[in-house]
Amino acid sequence: MEADGRRRVVVESITPEVDGGRFPVKRTVGDQVAVEADVFADGHDAVAASLLANRIGAKEWTEIRMRPLVNDRWTAAFRVSELGHYRFKIQGWIDHFESWRRDLLKRIQADTDSELDYLIGADLVEETAKRATGGDSLWLKERAAVLRSKQPPKQMRTHATDPMLHELAMRYPDKQLATESDRELEIVVEPVRARFSSWYEFFPRSTAAEPDRHGTFADCEKRLDYVAELGFNVVYLPPIHPIGMTFRKGRNNSPQAGPNDFGSPWAIGAVDGGHKAIHKELGTIENFRRFVKKARELELSVALDVAFQASPDHPYVREHEAWFRKRPDGTIQYAENPPKKYQDIYPFDFESQDWRGMWEEFKSVFLYWVDEGVTIFRVDNPHTKAFPFWEWVIAEVKDEHPEVIFLAEAFTRPKIMYRLAKLGFGQSYTYFPWRNGKQEITAYLTELTQTPVREFFRPNQWPNTPDILTEFLQVGGRAAFVIRLLLAATLGANYGIYGPAFELLENRPVRRGSEEYLNSEKYEIRHWDLDRADSLRDLVARVNGIRNSNEALQQDWTLKFHGTENDQLIAYSKESEDRSNLILTVVNLDPHYAQSGYVTLPLDELEIPGDRGYEAEDLLTGARYLWHGPRNYVELNPARMSGHILKIHRRLKVETDFEYFL
Amino acid sequence: MEADGRRRVVVESITPEVDGGRFPVKRTVGDQVAVEADVFADGHDAVAASLLANRIGAKEWTEIRMRPLVNDRWTAAFRVSELGHYRFKIQGWIDHFESWRRDLLKRIQADTDSELDYLIGADLVEETAKRATGGDSLWLKERAAVLRSKQPPKQMRTHATDPMLHELAMRYPDKQLATESDRELEIVVEPVRARFSSWYEFFPRSTAAEPDRHGTFADCEKRLDYVAELGFNVVYLPPIHPIGMTFRKGRNNSPQAGPNDFGSPWAIGAVDGGHKAIHKELGTIENFRRFVKKARELELSVALDVAFQASPDHPYVREHEAWFRKRPDGTIQYAENPPKKYQDIYPFDFESQDWRGMWEEFKSVFLYWVDEGVTIFRVDNPHTKAFPFWEWVIAEVKDEHPEVIFLAEAFTRPKIMYRLAKLGFGQSYTYFPWRNGKQEITAYLTELTQTPVREFFRPNQWPNTPDILTEFLQVGGRAAFVIRLLLAATLGANYGIYGPAFELLENRPVRRGSEEYLNSEKYEIRHWDLDRADSLRDLVARVNGIRNSNEALQQDWTLKFHGTENDQLIAYSKESEDRSNLILTVVNLDPHYAQSGYVTLPLDELEIPGDRGYEAEDLLTGARYLWHGPRNYVELNPARMSGHILKIHRRLKVETDFEYFL
Repeated sequence: MEADGRRRVVVESITPEVDGGRFPVKRTVGDQVAVEADVFADGHDAVAASLLANRIGAKEWTEIRMRPLVNDRWTAAFRVSELGHYRFKIQGWIDHFESWRRDLLKRIQADTDSELDYLIGADLVEETAKRATGGDSLWLKERAAVLRSKQPPKQMRTHATDPMLHELAMRYPDKQLATESDRELEIVVEPVRARFSSWYEFFPRSTAAEPDRHGTFADCEKRLDYVAELGFNVVYLPPIHPIGMTFRKGRNNSPQAGPNDFGSPWAIGAVDGGHKAIHKELGTIENFRRFVKKARELELSVALDVAFQASPDHPYVREHEAWFRKRPDGTIQYAENPPKKYQDIYPFDFESQDWRGMWEEFKSVFLYWVDEGVTIFRVDNPHTKAFPFWEWVIAEVKDEHPEVIFLAEAFTRPKIMYRLAKLGFGQSYTYFPWRNGKQEITAYLTELTQTPVREFFRPNQWPNTPDILTEFLQVGGRAAFVIRLLLAATLGANYGIYGPAFELLENRPVRRGSEEYLNSEKYEIRHWDLDRADSLRDLVARVNGIRNSNEALQQDWTLKFHGTENDQLIAYSKESEDRSNLILTVVNLDPHYAQSGYVTLPLDELEIPGDRGYEAEDLLTGARYLWHGPRNYVELNPARMSGHILKIHRRLKVETDFEYFL
Repeated sequence: MEADGRRRVVVESITPEVDGGRFPVKRTVGDQVAVEADVFADGHDAVAASLLANRIGAKEWTEIRMRPLVNDRWTAAFRVSELGHYRFKIQGWIDHFESWRRDLLKRIQADTDSELDYLIGADLVEETAKRATGGDSLWLKERAAVLRSKQPPKQMRTHATDPMLHELAMRYPDKQLATESDRELEIVVEPVRARFSSWYEFFPRSTAAEPDRHGTFADCEKRLDYVAELGFNVVYLPPIHPIGMTFRKGRNNSPQAGPNDFGSPWAIGAVDGGHKAIHKELGTIENFRRFVKKARELELSVALDVAFQASPDHPYVREHEAWFRKRPDGTIQYAENPPKKYQDIYPFDFESQDWRGMWEEFKSVFLYWVDEGVTIFRVDNPHTKAFPFWEWVIAEVKDEHPEVIFLAEAFTRPKIMYRLAKLGFGQSYTYFPWRNGKQEITAYLTELTQTPVREFFRPNQWPNTPDILTEFLQVGGRAAFVIRLLLAATLGANYGIYGPAFELLENRPVRRGSEEYLNSEKYEIRHWDLDRADSLRDLVARVNGIRNSNEALQQDWTLKFHGTENDQLIAYSKESEDRSNLILTVVNLDPHYAQSGYVTLPLDELEIPGDRGYEAEDLLTGARYLWHGPRNYVELNPARMSGHILKIHRRLKVETDFEYFL
């Protein structure tokens, strides 16, 4: 038999939650958390509910009364103001005072209230007085006496329906038989940069002023000014560690490296050290520290690539044989996808007997770089390492450093992508590079931003990466780069580009059908002419400037797609939380032809008055359009500009807005 | 740190389940249970999964290997053959043998297999031999030796890819690092009658051959022949207990009863007894036993109404004061919905200090009637009694008597309806009486039969009840009754009618706007002329006959709606589990006018060959139609018959089906 079978209230279907509370939901500092739950009981008694929330570790709960929506759904909200973990739960209870009050009001209306009704009320008020303290308690005791005093109906009605009585009854509810939600739900609160970030990735090796010289951290420092001018706030470097010699790869991924080949930075580890060491050609730890300092001055976060794999020359190979899978002939199993072999890479064996030692070492890699000022880790192929490791290591690192953000570089099957996000990755790469059609963009972005997926998965949208030169970019010319930039930067509050390849329109694949770059920086040094006349740098700077000054583009949750009557024309809006900033983006997805259509806006939903004109200001060009009603004409020619980023000024003034009218 | 961080496989999103396993899913004896789950791991190793199921209480698990579908989803099925509770869980593990085998096949294809590959295999086979027993173990040990024997490639390939080796490796998997699903999921298996039942409700008081005489169980016994002839398999009686005198209701719910008024059977309890006693006018417990015996001979289940409420004269009122809510003047709180008062009814107080005693007594009420041969309880207003009570009492009763079925008579808010079903009610009344339009029928039945709701909620569709005479029946004439009968009986594998009011087309409300019957049997005796020429009894018998001989109509899960190009014409199909029985129902929802349209069937989905004709046999009239292709014309005139119940004979023979053609 139930411990107390008299708990009549049900509390269920709480949102937000991920997998019934198995994983925390994600928020960023300052966010409002809107909680909802089904709360109901048998019969006709009044029900009440409270949201209880606090920061994990705090002793006291903050209690917020919930209010009913429709269909037995209740809601309340609280704000998470600090980094770290919060939790919340819900209480529901039968509110006998409210049942009495509600029924009494009906009786008064029907003129059927009786002495007995007031006596019942007096008992309830006296119970409330016992739960109350100080003056409240005295006041309530007195009121109970009054309700027993058998005064004429008119007076009794006034005493019983007194708002003060109602308020005190609300303040001291009878929660003896309250139901509490099954488990406390958790929220992990991350820095605002987890929600809003603009990434610029470049290869340190390719930053020297002179062609063919290996770039150094000193060169990288200079490059930071360029990155900051372009308006980015995260600078991300591929691995900076010593590169292995054994089976080193040559240019264009050739299996044999020549004497002047530099190899892949992802073949980590050499005699000089491994994941905590710095590639000699780039400089020393001191140089790296100067780089970090400069970045900080420019308000750029430094993101480092963490790839848990080893070249055959990595010190781990000698020091921790147990972390690798041995073959019967005593050699270590290299990476392979038969019949392809990747002999320059040894994967770690996550079924190692010494998995605990390996986990601890990997954790120390993160902590080492955090101590050096790195606050973001872009994790390479996390889907080829054991899931329990990620859940543990991210929690461990964030426990000491809740400001740290992890980006999952997994382009793999959907459920694995989502699992990694649930395990703690604060940002995730997405299938965005391959979504170029209007329907597929709409469907995918809707899934990411308008379903419960958003509680745990924060997309980071990239048009290109060193591994991904999409066919769209290969064949679409300059306009393709503009289109993908506009989409990434306005669809994704988090987005990034791999430069200077991107702004310099690098689009030659190693061969037709491949997404690998020809002469990829992964295997050689490239020299980039940043000042080339055809560079997109001005547009990139303009777009980032728009992002930085428009809150609407700094989150993804208000994304709404709108009709255009043309499948090559996509239109969508975003609004700031306070609704004061409304941005409408329209992009011509066709890189070759001008396209036109009527953008149709749901004026009511967007709170645009339907009875007067409104202004659409193109933040890319400065052009201003006067629009009227829901349907407005748009034409975009890729030879000039493939998109509008329109700031909507909702209200054009009319005569009644001016003093002289009155 | 994780207990064993090397468990790399994830098992999640298991179906079927209700609220993450908080409640059991429902099945009936003999059902196939199709289980699905997401099973995946990091990296590229092969994954394997098993479904483990058994009857609760059994020591051994039955293991069934799952097979992959798409998108990391796996499936397996098992059959529940006995009443009671089953449970299941899922195991997933990395299958190193399969990874090796898969990669070896690729290597062989590329002609890059080496001695080392076979040595790796030998180690895996030897490990398998250790887990195997008897001859299998010996065979495997031998095979491991062979794989080490360095024979020429051709022979090694044969030894390594031997299907017998594959099979034995499957039989003795390495589950050391297997992941098991979080919690065992439960299935409650109920009698087939929980899924397929045809209910007939009648008032025992109105069964006498002579007008105005109070009916007795002897009369009810005679009535059973009629009910059986009509093809029903459940006979349901409103409460049969002594009726209170205090505040007894008169005809048409008048607050004053006259001396010849019989009161409402739901005002339970008098000096003669309460919920375990029999109303004197109906007879004795001996008479009731005869009634039950006769019903059993006719293969009719007896369903009793259980209404936990008391008339002021109920023995409980004297014996268990604590079960009722007292008012300050010492009187007991009667039922009310201010300003309405129901002074003939005392509700029980589920917040009583003696709730345990009350629960036990109520349980004993169920068990008392089970001992008297009752196997189904139609529970009156369960939503006004505490939820924890229902969960407890249904589990307790079914623990001793898993054959018992509970029907929830709650016409209340959606979440409460669903909660009651989750708590254990095996059948539930629905909003069906008020769904008369094509769109609303389609939407509602889709929700009930094609969403996870069906895992816990079994609808029982009623066109009328003693409390519900819908406006559709009030105004639609005879055709309205035909329409609602056809819909209820073909949309609901469980359905029922309140007769003889239904088949005798009783449609006068007590007043316009009310759903109460004029001269309701709830407050008086009615005399029904079962042989009236306009009775629908023949149609009811025909419809039940069709249900009894067509498996397709004995379940709801295969329901599919089809287009008709006419909003007054609804069409839907159902199939038996083995797909051999396919029934298409078409109903003209308009009770006044003939309607026609083209019924469009998805031939592929229904496995109807598109290259030849097929036959639609109307089981109501015997008419046979030859149809071709997906679109076929239907016309239904309510003056003749408002619907077709068509048995689809998928395959008309053509010349190639005959011997002489060959």
